[in-house]
Amino acid sequence: MSKIKYEVPEPTLRRLPWYLAFAQLFKKEGNANISSTQIAISLDIDPSKVAKDLSFINISGKTRVGYDLEEFTKVLERFLGFKQAHNAFMFGVGSLGGALLQDNGLSNYGLDVVAGFDVKSELIGTSINNIPIYHVESCANLKQKLDVDIGILTVPIDKAQEVADMMVAGGIKAIWNFTPFRIRVPENVVVQNTSIYAHLAVMYNRLNEQLEKDKISVE
Amino acid sequence: MSKIKYEVPEPTLRRLPWYLAFAQLFKKEGNANISSTQIAISLDIDPSKVAKDLSFINISGKTRVGYDLEEFTKVLERFLGFKQAHNAFMFGVGSLGGALLQDNGLSNYGLDVVAGFDVKSELIGTSINNIPIYHVESCANLKQKLDVDIGILTVPIDKAQEVADMMVAGGIKAIWNFTPFRIRVPENVVVQNTSIYAHLAVMYNRLNEQLEKDKISVE
Repeated sequence: MSKIKYEVPEPTLRRLPWYLAFAQLFKKEGNANISSTQIAISLDIDPSKVAKDLSFINISGKTRVGYDLEEFTKVLERFLGFKQAHNAFMFGVGSLGGALLQDNGLSNYGLDVVAGFDVKSELIGTSINNIPIYHVESCANLKQKLDVDIGILTVPIDKAQEVADMMVAGGIKAIWNFTPFRIRVPENVVVQNTSIYAHLAVMYNRLNEQLEKDKISVE
Repeated sequence: MSKIKYEVPEPTLRRLPWYLAFAQLFKKEGNANISSTQIAISLDIDPSKVAKDLSFINISGKTRVGYDLEEFTKVLERFLGFKQAHNAFMFGVGSLGGALLQDNGLSNYGLDVVAGFDVKSELIGTSINNIPIYHVESCANLKQKLDVDIGILTVPIDKAQEVADMMVAGGIKAIWNFTPFRIRVPENVVVQNTSIYAHLAVMYNRLNEQLEKDKISVE
């Protein structure tokens, strides 16, 4: 949909967190250095792909020694934005939204949800995990006071486009869309779709095909 | 990594939930029929791609009228596995795992988490959202009593491979991996990676590039 050409390809940005997780574990196991070949072999990814991915981050290794693990993890975390605080608003404090507010893991990866918004009167004025819930109409007001560029969208599908439009009008620059609805936004607004239910569909399908295959090979 | 050839391509399985969500909304708005062209235009997807995707599901439309919406949503939900109950175990009831147990949305999409497993003694014997938490050692035992093929992996990265191995040994056939760790499993075990933190990395990067561009165009 988007015609914007980005500097770092998306597949690279999706693989780099794998390298980071592996490097963190490797460091925890007492190692001081890591090479791109070690990453490639351990994660079963083509070595030239790993080297290409790592060429985007500004770090230099030593021949035959590799990267200093301490520096490698630090530079990679910074590159991925996990060490910088990004304020975010959560739109829709239903089942999934409420659950995500409970996840402190997000702030470990640089995402600080500073407020939640909903329309249900029983939620307004309460808080989840110390994050206050406001009426969605207070959003523009709060946006002016707080430095927030990111909005997390977890409303029901019949409200998804309407709330997305409101977010954009209120100055939100990036929408993390957890709904299975494909929202449309102006070209300069970033949309990251994370439909965990679509992932479920893929998993169910693969599982069924696998169970069928297992059945055939038993017969 | 996997060399298995599946019948339905993954991009199709990821787009079909979009069509479903749009069809559900369209039905709610009072429409009786939907055409593949309407879907294509509304979601800004190439019409031939939509037609190809829909060719995988067993439903026939009428020329100039399209699909009956009632039937279309029902067939699509069934095809995607959302209407069939799939029992699942949750491994790791930390921040993210605990949060996901709170999300009733999963059961609306066919996933019933029947038990959670952890090693922290303060969690064992408790329950979240009526889902009991057991010690991870009880897993094999419970697996024999309950019909469970799916394991959700939300443990810390340094336990990810170990717990995945244990799941496979215990007969789990599909692993929904929420950790940023790239686990390795036998070829006949399905892995669905849903690293929401990797999505964060992509979003941060796109947002930064966009903010840079906005700055330049203001200057």
